[in-house]
Amino acid sequence: MTTVEQAEKLILAEARDFGTENIPFEQALGRALAEDIKADRDLPPFNRVTMDGIAISYKAIESHITAFKIKATQAAGDEPVDIESLDECIEIMTGAALPNTVDTIIPYEHIEIKNSVATILNAAVKKSQNLHFKGADKQKGQIVATAGQVVSPAIISVAASVGKAELLVRKMLRIVVVSSGDELVDIDVQPLPIQIRKSNSYTIRAVLSQNQQHADLLHIPDDPEITGEKIGYCLQNYDVVLMTGGISMGKFDYIPRALEEMQVKTIFHKVSQRPGKPFWFGKHENGVLVFAFPGNPVATFMCLHRYFLPWLRVTQGLKAKSSVYAVLDEDFTFKPELQYFLQVTLRFSEEGKLFATPVEGNGSGDFANLADTDAFMELPLQRSEFKKSEAFRVWPFNNI
Amino acid sequence: MTTVEQAEKLILAEARDFGTENIPFEQALGRALAEDIKADRDLPPFNRVTMDGIAISYKAIESHITAFKIKATQAAGDEPVDIESLDECIEIMTGAALPNTVDTIIPYEHIEIKNSVATILNAAVKKSQNLHFKGADKQKGQIVATAGQVVSPAIISVAASVGKAELLVRKMLRIVVVSSGDELVDIDVQPLPIQIRKSNSYTIRAVLSQNQQHADLLHIPDDPEITGEKIGYCLQNYDVVLMTGGISMGKFDYIPRALEEMQVKTIFHKVSQRPGKPFWFGKHENGVLVFAFPGNPVATFMCLHRYFLPWLRVTQGLKAKSSVYAVLDEDFTFKPELQYFLQVTLRFSEEGKLFATPVEGNGSGDFANLADTDAFMELPLQRSEFKKSEAFRVWPFNNI
Repeated sequence: MTTVEQAEKLILAEARDFGTENIPFEQALGRALAEDIKADRDLPPFNRVTMDGIAISYKAIESHITAFKIKATQAAGDEPVDIESLDECIEIMTGAALPNTVDTIIPYEHIEIKNSVATILNAAVKKSQNLHFKGADKQKGQIVATAGQVVSPAIISVAASVGKAELLVRKMLRIVVVSSGDELVDIDVQPLPIQIRKSNSYTIRAVLSQNQQHADLLHIPDDPEITGEKIGYCLQNYDVVLMTGGISMGKFDYIPRALEEMQVKTIFHKVSQRPGKPFWFGKHENGVLVFAFPGNPVATFMCLHRYFLPWLRVTQGLKAKSSVYAVLDEDFTFKPELQYFLQVTLRFSEEGKLFATPVEGNGSGDFANLADTDAFMELPLQRSEFKKSEAFRVWPFNNI
Repeated sequence: MTTVEQAEKLILAEARDFGTENIPFEQALGRALAEDIKADRDLPPFNRVTMDGIAISYKAIESHITAFKIKATQAAGDEPVDIESLDECIEIMTGAALPNTVDTIIPYEHIEIKNSVATILNAAVKKSQNLHFKGADKQKGQIVATAGQVVSPAIISVAASVGKAELLVRKMLRIVVVSSGDELVDIDVQPLPIQIRKSNSYTIRAVLSQNQQHADLLHIPDDPEITGEKIGYCLQNYDVVLMTGGISMGKFDYIPRALEEMQVKTIFHKVSQRPGKPFWFGKHENGVLVFAFPGNPVATFMCLHRYFLPWLRVTQGLKAKSSVYAVLDEDFTFKPELQYFLQVTLRFSEEGKLFATPVEGNGSGDFANLADTDAFMELPLQRSEFKKSEAFRVWPFNNI
């Protein structure tokens, strides 16, 4: 059987570039940046005053001058005004551009102003104090954000500062989420005792939406002809098909047959893991990828976070995310020869350690637990006893 | 001067309930759930088959029967079909409702079917295997998600399963972000050498958008009359006013005067912290809160994460988030008697420890660094030497 590690490799090998697009910079939040952003001028663009007060020449301090005639007042955005002698100052505001003839800012707190004369109170003055020098943060042409970063609020800030009203980002994929089976009914329908409501498709769409991807939803009834038509439609109109359920050995699973007839090649079927053993992955000759997640909600959720999102990152050209590890805070036993994905809650100790507490569900169908847990802990395949205080990799699905 | 801790308390004391609204469940992603969600029936709603294969009565195994006539085939969603004798079986599919006369599922992998007779291959059979029993996850009426949780994809899943097409969530706030100053120009304008482009407002709006809040943007020029009018408008039309810059002792800061004239009471002004010392917080008599963040981008960003988002959580009725702590991985010195918020990058060790590496900017104006860091580390006020391997609280602004 395919191992988790092999499955991951086979999936990542199918990552490819779906192109880029220019979009208004605020809409780019959360998208994958596809260009380096460069400073269009020095940052700050001028010697910038960082306190309200007076601007003087430090030479005045060296000459023991303590009282200064206010020659002019200069607000942020005003043209700089020069002094003509050392006993003059400019009353100046935060954000203003420092005039050439001054080099030191003394804040209001340290002066007293009477009759247009500012006198320094008993305060030490350091040359160049309360200034943020031209180019101190970045110099013109220097890179301020790089391709392969997720566009964060900080990058939005940087883009605004350098005048990038549009950003080049990786295109969103055309994704369809396919559910199947006559036992599934819509949310607003009262199901018969033997029916259940659709839920996996919405879960998948929600996770995609958190990752700035949109997905269409499609339901296929248990009918071979309609199945063939709809699968054909998906393979022609989408980049990726995500299926939930429908890939098994069951008599009424028309989907595997339809995929086979349409030349979708199996890359792997079944992974030595729990949940999610029946996970199937394939590729159409036109390049469309089909991720067929097992029908049970926890398995779908796990496969989405363990396989699909990492594939999406690579596909979007994003830098690898650093892995998260947590310390098991009680012993745990899992006997089957499968790689187990244990549902855990996470919390930090004041010593900076991340602790994981197992929350055992009733098998892989128990999605109700997911609402109360934070991550899957990936327990190594070769072992069955996992000890309190051992650390293992975790795949968080809620923000830590 | 107000300490960070005092400022936090004063702000959280002003949290209040802005009401609730019902919205379509998929739109509720990321919003604050304001009701408990209960199972409308048992989960699963019936004894659910978890493997494709045959359903038999375990009594047959006890009677050493190994070959079974296939009486009928039952797919998921089909009415259950009963057997009439122990040597009969039902060919049954994943997701089907278990008929009353059978209690054990033997998967296809462990049987051979010839001429409508299924024979068990050399495999151990356990009573009740491959079944997920009615009510095993949750029982009818049991709570599956609670008020005060952020609506996650798992909660979307749960809501869909129990037929909650609409969810009651906390209302979004009416928020306006106010920038001011004639030195600020729009993104798409080529600034004069003494001007800079607006960026803080967009940063704030991006952070709010990550927290499912919308904000209007408003710019106030350096004009006392327009300032008065616009501040008045904000106090009448919004729940919260977020300002960036404009609250200082500067001569052209018309905003403090306008706020005072309109009976906005100062709750605190200046916090013993860096960046963000000039942070001002006040309240209008009609209850509108005014957060006036200092104009420099890093200070605004820090105050937003350290004060505003925690206030927003409480206001939205969300359960407290557990604090994040990280281990400093190099010595750091900070002399001023201020609580320092150090920009750090974060990474996990394989032992589950979160490490923080200081990335020093050029003072609080250096927002370009924010794009490369992950969090602010809050260093205690009373100390100036911080040693490698000590742990302190961090405020992440990027997903870990």
